[in-house]
Amino acid sequence: MASNQQVKLLGAKGSPFVARAKIALKLKGVQYEYIHESLSNKSDLLLKNNPVHKKVPVLLHNDKPVCESLVIVEYVDEAWTGSTILPSDLYHRAQARFWSKFVDDKVLPAVFKAATNPNEKEKEKGGEELRESLKILENELKGKFFNGDSIGLVDIAALFWLPIIQEVVGLDLNNSEKYPKLEKGGQEIMNHHVVKEVFVGISPEADPLLAFFKGHFHSNTPSK
Amino acid sequence: MASNQQVKLLGAKGSPFVARAKIALKLKGVQYEYIHESLSNKSDLLLKNNPVHKKVPVLLHNDKPVCESLVIVEYVDEAWTGSTILPSDLYHRAQARFWSKFVDDKVLPAVFKAATNPNEKEKEKGGEELRESLKILENELKGKFFNGDSIGLVDIAALFWLPIIQEVVGLDLNNSEKYPKLEKGGQEIMNHHVVKEVFVGISPEADPLLAFFKGHFHSNTPSK
Repeated sequence: MASNQQVKLLGAKGSPFVARAKIALKLKGVQYEYIHESLSNKSDLLLKNNPVHKKVPVLLHNDKPVCESLVIVEYVDEAWTGSTILPSDLYHRAQARFWSKFVDDKVLPAVFKAATNPNEKEKEKGGEELRESLKILENELKGKFFNGDSIGLVDIAALFWLPIIQEVVGLDLNNSEKYPKLEKGGQEIMNHHVVKEVFVGISPEADPLLAFFKGHFHSNTPSK
Repeated sequence: MASNQQVKLLGAKGSPFVARAKIALKLKGVQYEYIHESLSNKSDLLLKNNPVHKKVPVLLHNDKPVCESLVIVEYVDEAWTGSTILPSDLYHRAQARFWSKFVDDKVLPAVFKAATNPNEKEKEKGGEELRESLKILENELKGKFFNGDSIGLVDIAALFWLPIIQEVVGLDLNNSEKYPKLEKGGQEIMNHHVVKEVFVGISPEADPLLAFFKGHFHSNTPSK
């Protein structure tokens, strides 16, 4: 695709879903304009381009909107050359879609339940569901990343959540003992130069990783 | 892809998610062996090939499992030539993914809430959410199908639910008045020869469409 494309990303501070879109764009080396959205006072641009969910991230590619973080990541992978985010092998591609869906359907709802449900019993149930789904993910991580040696769809969907769940959600997941591969994968992805670029700069004076997420988790308004 | 592939589909009677996989396979003209699963007594084959969700449908392509109905549909589209299920245009492909995700994330949870939630208030809320999301879908349906003149991903995800929601879920959706395009699209897809093949034969003595779904909705065990 020609490089003189107009690319904008509507995002909000503290949204890990926006981080997914940013990582994909940066992996491909796409130049884009970042437009900050205040989630308490959504702009007409956001409401016009994501009238269904009214959420960030929204990618505007020559003014055409693409919404939902995993849909954006896959679109970016198809629209630009560069690092391959989804495997080229059909079967592995289906597996990547399966596992990224697992993260959104099982892992993250459990994270939000454990972090924000006002009912103590539900909170506890969320913690159990989270431990169970992390165990399943742990067994799936065979190499440095889910995608092998380079960052792929499942890594973007899952890995950077891990280092912060314990601290931000306040769950004693005992990562390094129970989920050693996820723990290591989380560190690997956070040390990747592209991912570092996404997180650093959000709050340079504080721990950029934690600063990035804390606002999100405590805002209780997950975007997707 | 060569035609001498071994293709099996693990399914269960009354599962609209299995119907999605069947429609995709039949649209492509793929010969496959259908293996019936009893959801109250799941086989070792199912548990081994979908250990994460333990649900149908599971596609076995030369013994390699692909799970989750929309992942299967997309895999089938990529693995076999024939009718194109996802648009070839990148932007339209992203839109198809967005809308099929909308069906699974918004429409169907509302259907299940309205149909099976034991709490009357929640049931009612499910009904409202369903009406709201159907209104959004109605506005999206521009042609005969979401995909234009041929059946595509969103049609497989969404359309054949419509004719049965009112009767099976027991909601007065007043389809033809409020959702005339969805009503017509639902009829169009059910009259398509491939879709007819999928539904007819399930219960030849009864209305095949309703017979197919009633068991599913009242079993209260949605598969995906």
